[in-house]
Amino acid sequence: MSDPLKIAIAGLGTVGAGVVKMVQTHGELLARRAGRPLKIVAVSARSKGKDRGVGLSDYAWEDDPVALARREDVDLLIEVMGGEDGPAKACCEAALAAGKHVVTANKAMLALHGQALAELAESTGAALRFEAAVAGGIPIVKALTEGLAGNGISRVMGVMNGTCNYILTKMEATGESYSDVLKEAQALGYAEADPTVDVGGIDAAHKLSLLAATAFGTRVAFDKVEIEGIQRITLQDIKNTADMGYKIKLLGVAQQNEDGIEQRMQPCLVPTASPLGQLEGVSNMVVVEGDFIGQTVYQGPGAGEGPTASAILGDIMDIARGLIIPAFGQPAKGLAQANISSNGSDAAYYLRFSLTDAPGTLAKLASILGAHNVSINRMHQYSHDGKTAPLVIVTHTTPRAALNTALAEICALTASMAEPVALRIESL
Amino acid sequence: MSDPLKIAIAGLGTVGAGVVKMVQTHGELLARRAGRPLKIVAVSARSKGKDRGVGLSDYAWEDDPVALARREDVDLLIEVMGGEDGPAKACCEAALAAGKHVVTANKAMLALHGQALAELAESTGAALRFEAAVAGGIPIVKALTEGLAGNGISRVMGVMNGTCNYILTKMEATGESYSDVLKEAQALGYAEADPTVDVGGIDAAHKLSLLAATAFGTRVAFDKVEIEGIQRITLQDIKNTADMGYKIKLLGVAQQNEDGIEQRMQPCLVPTASPLGQLEGVSNMVVVEGDFIGQTVYQGPGAGEGPTASAILGDIMDIARGLIIPAFGQPAKGLAQANISSNGSDAAYYLRFSLTDAPGTLAKLASILGAHNVSINRMHQYSHDGKTAPLVIVTHTTPRAALNTALAEICALTASMAEPVALRIESL
Repeated sequence: MSDPLKIAIAGLGTVGAGVVKMVQTHGELLARRAGRPLKIVAVSARSKGKDRGVGLSDYAWEDDPVALARREDVDLLIEVMGGEDGPAKACCEAALAAGKHVVTANKAMLALHGQALAELAESTGAALRFEAAVAGGIPIVKALTEGLAGNGISRVMGVMNGTCNYILTKMEATGESYSDVLKEAQALGYAEADPTVDVGGIDAAHKLSLLAATAFGTRVAFDKVEIEGIQRITLQDIKNTADMGYKIKLLGVAQQNEDGIEQRMQPCLVPTASPLGQLEGVSNMVVVEGDFIGQTVYQGPGAGEGPTASAILGDIMDIARGLIIPAFGQPAKGLAQANISSNGSDAAYYLRFSLTDAPGTLAKLASILGAHNVSINRMHQYSHDGKTAPLVIVTHTTPRAALNTALAEICALTASMAEPVALRIESL
Repeated sequence: MSDPLKIAIAGLGTVGAGVVKMVQTHGELLARRAGRPLKIVAVSARSKGKDRGVGLSDYAWEDDPVALARREDVDLLIEVMGGEDGPAKACCEAALAAGKHVVTANKAMLALHGQALAELAESTGAALRFEAAVAGGIPIVKALTEGLAGNGISRVMGVMNGTCNYILTKMEATGESYSDVLKEAQALGYAEADPTVDVGGIDAAHKLSLLAATAFGTRVAFDKVEIEGIQRITLQDIKNTADMGYKIKLLGVAQQNEDGIEQRMQPCLVPTASPLGQLEGVSNMVVVEGDFIGQTVYQGPGAGEGPTASAILGDIMDIARGLIIPAFGQPAKGLAQANISSNGSDAAYYLRFSLTDAPGTLAKLASILGAHNVSINRMHQYSHDGKTAPLVIVTHTTPRAALNTALAEICALTASMAEPVALRIESL
């Protein structure tokens, strides 16, 4: 058996402690599978004294994660501190610059600095791996970069934020409002005190940008992801769409159009009977479409100690076995800027309007839609008590640009009481 | 860029031609991803003149696959001839003995000779890979051996034969009989002229035995898989179970019990709302449960030119990138014989009896079940015209051994017109 792979862990929160537990629990099995022992040699975290439920006394302690990364006795740094800049990035840079491998769960850091870090890794021959950064325990980065590596990829999409899926499925199951379920999610630890990064779609968009780069061989283009959160989804939207055979999901889609790549993270309607429509709770699901494979679907836990640690261990095992491939599946220096599709793809939309209940309002709205060639497939005005009449329209397939213009004009009507909600119906 | 990986293909049926198409279509992309070109140098098949829809004139031709495997200019042999022994095995052995890597889709060969071939590969430092042998295009071997390599695996299960799933879902959708749908499947090319290997569960059991060895780190034990086909499933069974919220699937399950490993390939009931219950047509699905990851689900096309070629390309790309790991994820020489669970796990069962419509019959049957502690959860006697009364019983959780004894006694009753059908209700 070869020399041990010597590991340092920066960050001992839930995930860092999970990695320690896994290595301690399965030491012998991991050595048999990897052909060499995995050996944690040093750790670093903010508070040395805190009880994390795992024994750390065998490992050296470093207060400074950069010093940890630079230790001579370390082959591989696991970065699970979080934070897109600061110490997390600094210790990854220090490790890679010294030719040490890095395994990270830090999607925000990679969404912003992935290209630079990948180039740095390549320049020193180190591996940079991030399975845990996307869709938790699901080995989806591996599927894209390795298992499906023979395919041209046309679309990657999925539900990549468990908090949002928990909120949407809980609203439907219990009939509770968005804000009530969000409070519960916060109490259960699924959502942060400031939930914006989750419910605003930013966390999921970080992940999507990494998958898109990996799938299409382009530089990470997080700033080019169209992002919309779930904050405006009401219980009524969920009921309306359920009546029509759909579920609302915060869905990330990255696809190759004729004029470039389209990247969207937004609430969408998907058929209730589809795998995505069936996805409940905090689970994640990613769908990959390739030219030879067709469609494959991957489902699993999107977060949590065990699943995230499992993804990190997968990366560690590859490195222990000597697999060093480029972070995004192709040499980073050769990756082109993503050519972003200017118009995006056409789709049918679910529209919800809040209008004053006055004669002629519907006619005005319909004529604006008609003027922009937005054709109505079905329409339903829900019974109401107050002054505001809720109107739901499902369009035929329409270009988003035309729809946006129409919606802006409708929004400007004095009869319009609130900005319309427009949810894309994704074709699966 | 490094030297090309020089490839030979033994067998130019659908899958072999698919591999040629993929390499020809994506040559540049594959080279960028692998860091070196993939170069097909020679091929072999039964008939040289046959038009396979791909250009082969750039490749050397060998009539003898063993000679192909031994060519000095070959680094990697792709074996897609099929056949558990004979030329397929001979050419794999020749390649491995010469230190050349082997990628194969041959589940029958590996189910019977996987251990010997894996040991041979290790002795010469060659890779032996078989992603295409299990669940078609789904990268499930990779997920088990690499992505989830940090976990202790407790259960692997799934639908691994598209033909059977096509037959069962088509019967339900159209109300046609088993034999009618089987004929259609044969006409569509989904089922062989002799369908026994598919509908008898043997093909799927080959695959399960490979997954079990990979998951549990034991030698392939195909002869220890409990196998039952779908030939006795009637339309009435499908309707009965649908009424109770279940679907019938040819389900493979390999699980770690306290007293050893349980391996079963048999028609089972799974909840209609579960991912397995939702699986339609020729798709495959594999569910993996690990101690840290929890449950993950993988779905995709189980057969066909593109998906199978995609799986083979995944293996080729790994080898091109220098990833050489043991065939079953751990050194083959160290694998122990599988310790097979003697009793298997308890479960509830769906039972269908064909009984003469005579007074006292039900009492006899119920008393036999009671005598063996098989407790009845629900029972339904379906209306009937002829002399045979169809009786359906769902049991509470019961040991299989006790149930088998009871069923044997019931079968010996003069009132029993046919061997009872007993389908396990799998807990997901």
